[in-house]
Amino acid sequence: MDGDRRGELRARFEGLWEALAAIGDGGAGGYRRFAWTPVDLVLRGWFREQAALRGLTYELDRNGNQWAWWGAPAPGAVVTGSHLDSVPGGGAFDGPLGVVSAFLAVDELRERGVVPARPIAVVNFADEEGARFGVACVGSRLLTGILGPDEARALRDGDGVTLAEALRSAQTALGTAGHDDHRPAPGTPEAYGRTVGGDDQGLVPNAEGIGRDGRALGRIGVFVELHIEQGRGLADLDAPIGVASAIWPHGRWRCTFHGEGNHAGTTRLADRHDPMLPFASAVLAARQAAEQAGALATFGKVRVDPNGTNAIPSRVDAWLDGRAPDAATVDAMVHRITEAARAAGAEHGVRVEVVTESSTPVVEFGDELRDRIVATLGGVPALPTGAGHDAGILSASVPSAMLFVRNRTGVSHSPAEHAETEDCVAGVVALTAVLEDLACR
Amino acid sequence: MDGDRRGELRARFEGLWEALAAIGDGGAGGYRRFAWTPVDLVLRGWFREQAALRGLTYELDRNGNQWAWWGAPAPGAVVTGSHLDSVPGGGAFDGPLGVVSAFLAVDELRERGVVPARPIAVVNFADEEGARFGVACVGSRLLTGILGPDEARALRDGDGVTLAEALRSAQTALGTAGHDDHRPAPGTPEAYGRTVGGDDQGLVPNAEGIGRDGRALGRIGVFVELHIEQGRGLADLDAPIGVASAIWPHGRWRCTFHGEGNHAGTTRLADRHDPMLPFASAVLAARQAAEQAGALATFGKVRVDPNGTNAIPSRVDAWLDGRAPDAATVDAMVHRITEAARAAGAEHGVRVEVVTESSTPVVEFGDELRDRIVATLGGVPALPTGAGHDAGILSASVPSAMLFVRNRTGVSHSPAEHAETEDCVAGVVALTAVLEDLACR
Repeated sequence: MDGDRRGELRARFEGLWEALAAIGDGGAGGYRRFAWTPVDLVLRGWFREQAALRGLTYELDRNGNQWAWWGAPAPGAVVTGSHLDSVPGGGAFDGPLGVVSAFLAVDELRERGVVPARPIAVVNFADEEGARFGVACVGSRLLTGILGPDEARALRDGDGVTLAEALRSAQTALGTAGHDDHRPAPGTPEAYGRTVGGDDQGLVPNAEGIGRDGRALGRIGVFVELHIEQGRGLADLDAPIGVASAIWPHGRWRCTFHGEGNHAGTTRLADRHDPMLPFASAVLAARQAAEQAGALATFGKVRVDPNGTNAIPSRVDAWLDGRAPDAATVDAMVHRITEAARAAGAEHGVRVEVVTESSTPVVEFGDELRDRIVATLGGVPALPTGAGHDAGILSASVPSAMLFVRNRTGVSHSPAEHAETEDCVAGVVALTAVLEDLACR
Repeated sequence: MDGDRRGELRARFEGLWEALAAIGDGGAGGYRRFAWTPVDLVLRGWFREQAALRGLTYELDRNGNQWAWWGAPAPGAVVTGSHLDSVPGGGAFDGPLGVVSAFLAVDELRERGVVPARPIAVVNFADEEGARFGVACVGSRLLTGILGPDEARALRDGDGVTLAEALRSAQTALGTAGHDDHRPAPGTPEAYGRTVGGDDQGLVPNAEGIGRDGRALGRIGVFVELHIEQGRGLADLDAPIGVASAIWPHGRWRCTFHGEGNHAGTTRLADRHDPMLPFASAVLAARQAAEQAGALATFGKVRVDPNGTNAIPSRVDAWLDGRAPDAATVDAMVHRITEAARAAGAEHGVRVEVVTESSTPVVEFGDELRDRIVATLGGVPALPTGAGHDAGILSASVPSAMLFVRNRTGVSHSPAEHAETEDCVAGVVALTAVLEDLACR
């Protein structure tokens, strides 16, 4: 690719990136793009609009995943994309970079007059981060049947709202606005039109219709997800682009410490059942267990009841995130942390309850597809990751692969997450080559 | 007091108690009666109505403390009462028992035809718990000048609302309702009429007018606060009523752990600056330091940013409540906890900041007043408490004392807080005797 063409691609990237990055930008506080909230609806509107601008066929599947098709939807398709939702306080790149790169790669192929032998689709998977309902990759898990529809509908967010209720509320929000005859302000969910009750032109699916989607799944011949790297592997190797070798097995465990609320100023130490104490022991035990196992363990989310300065808490809920190169190591580590939490609980008369909220086995991306991509790109490094992705979920059903774009500081799930524009453009160029190879040869 | 009369008093107590207890009752979740919120306005309406029903002269002072006067307001008055606000997840008794008992004691005296030599006033002090703005006893601290008006106006709640803004919002809420000609539903703030912009018949003071109130303070000849005991001291002594000997010095410290947000699944342990780890060390250090000092230390309130399951937090704020028999012990204990937090922070590259939010010196209630009360009651036990009270704040300015009512389990700041009705009635009888002695002799 010559310098002029690369400059033009860079300008296009920056234009598309800027418009998307502005949606739900919380500044120094980062993004908070939770599934089925107003900002998510705006993001979904943006996706549908990108499809329309390019004359791609737009579809919403049963589970709220959005598709933009170049060519008639059919089995054997080459699919690329990622997600648009975020963690609380998230960065701009985790998810959106894969969607923006996918649209730009399709643009590149079309401008170069490439005629694919099979359809190409861009996808936005719903609720990848699981920030709202506690289960990650809900869109791809439902699509592949790994998550059942009843279980999914019953998931609750921090306010006690179920996923089913959230879908209905989102439909109502859009539907109600659509009944009016006014022209809504650009950038609002209403500007993208009202939902059409889960038909395939809408933004929000019907809660009743979610579940394994053999039709949508059967059309994916191969899936390639481009993603910002979430560590410093590529930076250390001085490489702008890499491919994924494996995703570590990982899971989330909710640890509840049932104590007894009381007055902080009058309750003798000996009379206390303070759940904060065994929680603190569990935090320290988790770090130690992770160090000894060569694994990762994190308590990043905590809820304290009643959370008053002069009240001994009655209860602490804390979420443990655990990851390791193999499942046995994860299990042994979590067992150890649980035992330490229980022992500390017993010391203080605090009952400790540990519930597995999600558990994802190791993903080894197929050698054949990965080798083909590495060859297409003229040799790029392959590296594992501790982060879950929709590509990991899909890999159990269809050949899947991931491209990583360098992240110089390795920071992710933070407003400070960043990839250089130059590296993002290299990502688009690489994805374009990979799509061309997969769709044409 | 004969059996019939005591039965009648018991019925009155139950009637008055039931009506008040229903306001803001969160059931198993406890009360959440935060200052200047709608439920607080309803409670304030209830107080003004109690004054009106009894033909007592109602006044709102500059700082939002409510007064009900039997006799013309004048210096040398015998004042009794407590507060109506609560901690989050609080019980029904902490505060309200003192206000209800005060009204019933006045009723008793009047029915018996007692003619006091000096005026008697019932008071409801504003924002005693400090649950919303982080500083306890705001009403009595402002009244006595211990807290300055500028400092008070700038206090912020968890949503960033200042005390000044909260007062204006509460005035607006009531004022707006008052402009309508409709009759509002009973039990709503509007039912108690609109505020009159800080004049002495209103419910909410003007933010501009708060500050030391020499007029209101100068009228208090003596203050007696009845309160549920917040420990098991009286239960262990098998006594329904006691008096306070002292209030331990106590304070609140906000500990901020500044870490670096990152992805929980991809950030190597060695690259982390996880603020949860030094926080956990501080929790355990606090318990140990308290044990060694014969003191109390509690982390009951925590705020985690961004509080996502798969995100290493960027920051943890935690509030330390510390109390001990003397100030030197409190200071040494907090110093020790701070050092432990800083050492753990240094280990993880997490900066630890500790800010004193409040610090209250020891209160030794005057011997003379206490001995007189003990004699009036025919000998009751005197015991110290770790809990702060408006009586403790006032004791620096006027002779003050406290009566405690037995709490069989010792549980407080919890929905399970409870005093037997029989003991509450004994409290009214005792308070009646004390008021008669102080106002007539």
